Amino acid sequence: MTDIFKLKEQNTPLVHCITNYVTVNDCANAILAFGGSPIMADDKNEVEDITSICNALVINIGTLNERTVAAMVKAGKRANQLNHPVVLDPVGAGASKMRTETASKLLREVQFQVIRGNISEIKTLYNSSGSTQGVDASEADQVTEGNLEKTVEMARNLSKQTGAVVAITGKTDIIADHASAYLINNGCGDMSRITGTGCMLSAIVGAAAALSGENLLETVAQTVSYMGICGELAKEKTESANGGTSTFRMYLIDYLSKLTKIEFTEREKIEQYQ
Amino acid sequence: MTDIFKLKEQNTPLVHCITNYVTVNDCANAILAFGGSPIMADDKNEVEDITSICNALVINIGTLNERTVAAMVKAGKRANQLNHPVVLDPVGAGASKMRTETASKLLREVQFQVIRGNISEIKTLYNSSGSTQGVDASEADQVTEGNLEKTVEMARNLSKQTGAVVAITGKTDIIADHASAYLINNGCGDMSRITGTGCMLSAIVGAAAALSGENLLETVAQTVSYMGICGELAKEKTESANGGTSTFRMYLIDYLSKLTKIEFTEREKIEQYQ
Amino acid sequence: MTDIFKLKEQNTPLVHCITNYVTVNDCANAILAFGGSPIMADDKNEVEDITSICNALVINIGTLNERTVAAMVKAGKRANQLNHPVVLDPVGAGASKMRTETASKLLREVQFQVIRGNISEIKTLYNSSGSTQGVDASEADQVTEGNLEKTVEMARNLSKQTGAVVAITGKTDIIADHASAYLINNGCGDMSRITGTGCMLSAIVGAAAALSGENLLETVAQTVSYMGICGELAKEKTESANGGTSTFRMYLIDYLSKLTKIEFTEREKIEQYQ
Repeated sequence: MTDIFKLKEQNTPLVHCITNYVTVNDCANAILAFGGSPIMADDKNEVEDITSICNALVINIGTLNERTVAAMVKAGKRANQLNHPVVLDPVGAGASKMRTETASKLLREVQFQVIRGNISEIKTLYNSSGSTQGVDASEADQVTEGNLEKTVEMARNLSKQTGAVVAITGKTDIIADHASAYLINNGCGDMSRITGTGCMLSAIVGAAAALSGENLLETVAQTVSYMGICGELAKEKTESANGGTSTFRMYLIDYLSKLTKIEFTEREKIEQYQ
Repeated sequence: MTDIFKLKEQNTPLVHCITNYVTVNDCANAILAFGGSPIMADDKNEVEDITSICNALVINIGTLNERTVAAMVKAGKRANQLNHPVVLDPVGAGASKMRTETASKLLREVQFQVIRGNISEIKTLYNSSGSTQGVDASEADQVTEGNLEKTVEMARNLSKQTGAVVAITGKTDIIADHASAYLINNGCGDMSRITGTGCMLSAIVGAAAALSGENLLETVAQTVSYMGICGELAKEKTESANGGTSTFRMYLIDYLSKLTKIEFTEREKIEQYQ
Repeated sequence: MTDIFKLKEQNTPLVHCITNYVTVNDCANAILAFGGSPIMADDKNEVEDITSICNALVINIGTLNERTVAAMVKAGKRANQLNHPVVLDPVGAGASKMRTETASKLLREVQFQVIRGNISEIKTLYNSSGSTQGVDASEADQVTEGNLEKTVEMARNLSKQTGAVVAITGKTDIIADHASAYLINNGCGDMSRITGTGCMLSAIVGAAAALSGENLLETVAQTVSYMGICGELAKEKTESANGGTSTFRMYLIDYLSKLTKIEFTEREKIEQYQ
């Protein structure tokens, strides 16, 4: 069984991020807190060099533009050649034609090892029929008991199509490859009252993927649970401090840097599906 | 009479921001804290799509470049077609020819519902004679008892020229349309010792404007007071905690997420001018 | 002898930053906390105007692209004409051909007054033989007792070549010009567990350089020590609060805004080399 804490001790993975300028600082601090080392670079003239010295690549389309999309494709192809894990965060896929088409283009031209998004974004990738509302998941697009089976099925099918581990995050998180799936019930609602929670998760998934070896599915599941537990602990500490959303954000990143294996083991709610 | 707390409960306004990369994370977190949902997008190929699914648009020229200025114009025109409120934050107008000209161009090509700036920036917009010194208001450009009447007059005239509610923020804030004006005496000096206070205010004014209905002037006045009160409370809490400017910034956003109607009512210092 | 606290009281230096989008918010808040006023602007059509109204220019190549490199050169030349101090932070020089070449190009076309980087970056600038690993200093590239003499020599030689004060920061910091050198032993390891420490230091060095008059070498040494002491105090407060890396970051910027001369004098570990 994978042990995310053992993996984290092994090494300091260098993670190349081509990401949005809204949450880029949070992503860099999250990777550092988690034990990695981040490098942000998005010029087409240097992304191949940068990716080559790294151990993983994270592509996040949150504030994409023509210039950076070209760099994403170039970096992705180079990472593929070097067998570095590549993570896609299709922020806002479905919210504009450009985002939906860019996500499709990336899936065609780059082999991803992990795709992480909310259910609206993943639906868009799957069948271009998501009712994405902005960059947050549409309310019509929640994972519920009623649609859980269908949603897991979608994750598995998208994994079959793409070869990537697919992580749909929300109240219940679904992590699937073509064969197996995990459900995760960590986290808290406060995580969607700040920007960057999803982006930070994708970023640390990049660091974890660089360390995962054969057990990518389990590693991603544990990393998603790790983030959720940090959210739970941050919420409790924020309430004690009578804080608001900004205090919560600080404590969330704090816990990324100091979560113990004991806390993780006590709170981890990962279950195999079926 | 407008009640900003009732408005906030109605709905979660989606706010499209084309804004600078210095304070963009603060703006996103401020909108979320205030009860809205932010989307940042600045590529000319997607801004019309993004604005179309939103309820308001905020244009902030803080780190403008040729590429994003084109996107601002395009997004602004589309928002106008859809009758979405559009907010202009003319950061640094007067500090460079490019900023002054961009602000003028935006005023010519886009109909704004709100313009919010410091007195130097608003002066520049009004008569291209502001002595702007960087992105902070020039010391020669403070609102004082001596020039209050003239400054209110300028705000009213700019409102007549542009059709927008004009908010000049500083020690005393002036919020005016062609007919009426409010003076607001909330806030504290610490708000200018961190970056982003003005940008965050413009961002939440976008969220508030999406909810305001007929009472835009009052809604903007209340939102400016809301922000100022959050600053006052943050200052008090920072002093208790023996904190510095970064602690103040955290508490400021905290209060954006948790200010109560009781706190607001007790502290609100909005008065009608004349 | 230079007194950084007296300098800070004199004036509010305006600092033009062309910097990366990862840590730009931290840089702006650091400059404000330190007593300056930051302006971020990177479009080639406005950088000359912006630099002209400022007192110093800081060029940081952390997320460079073709568009911004052109702006860096233009702004640097203008600042040179006006005799404004110009600071170079060659983030990641050595990590890609583009970064190394951009750093060289900037050194050829712009006269810098200060160059601040980690040892890997400075080595790259010095002899294009640095083994830079991403944006953090390579482990093979630590300043140790064994290589201290050689490293000081390198700093002095780079200073002779460029005419700039050279600051190599790490566990021990080396600040040198062609004739003299200081060693600084303030700071703590936690400073490399967050992003932005180096960038913030370069930013406040820009503010300090604008105030330094004749004593640039001493002013830079004191500013580096100032930052390190803020790190030490932040570490102690973070431990008391049982915080993690994000709490540390907040306290670090807090101390930039409130460090007293007494605290500085008690803790300052600046020694002249040889």
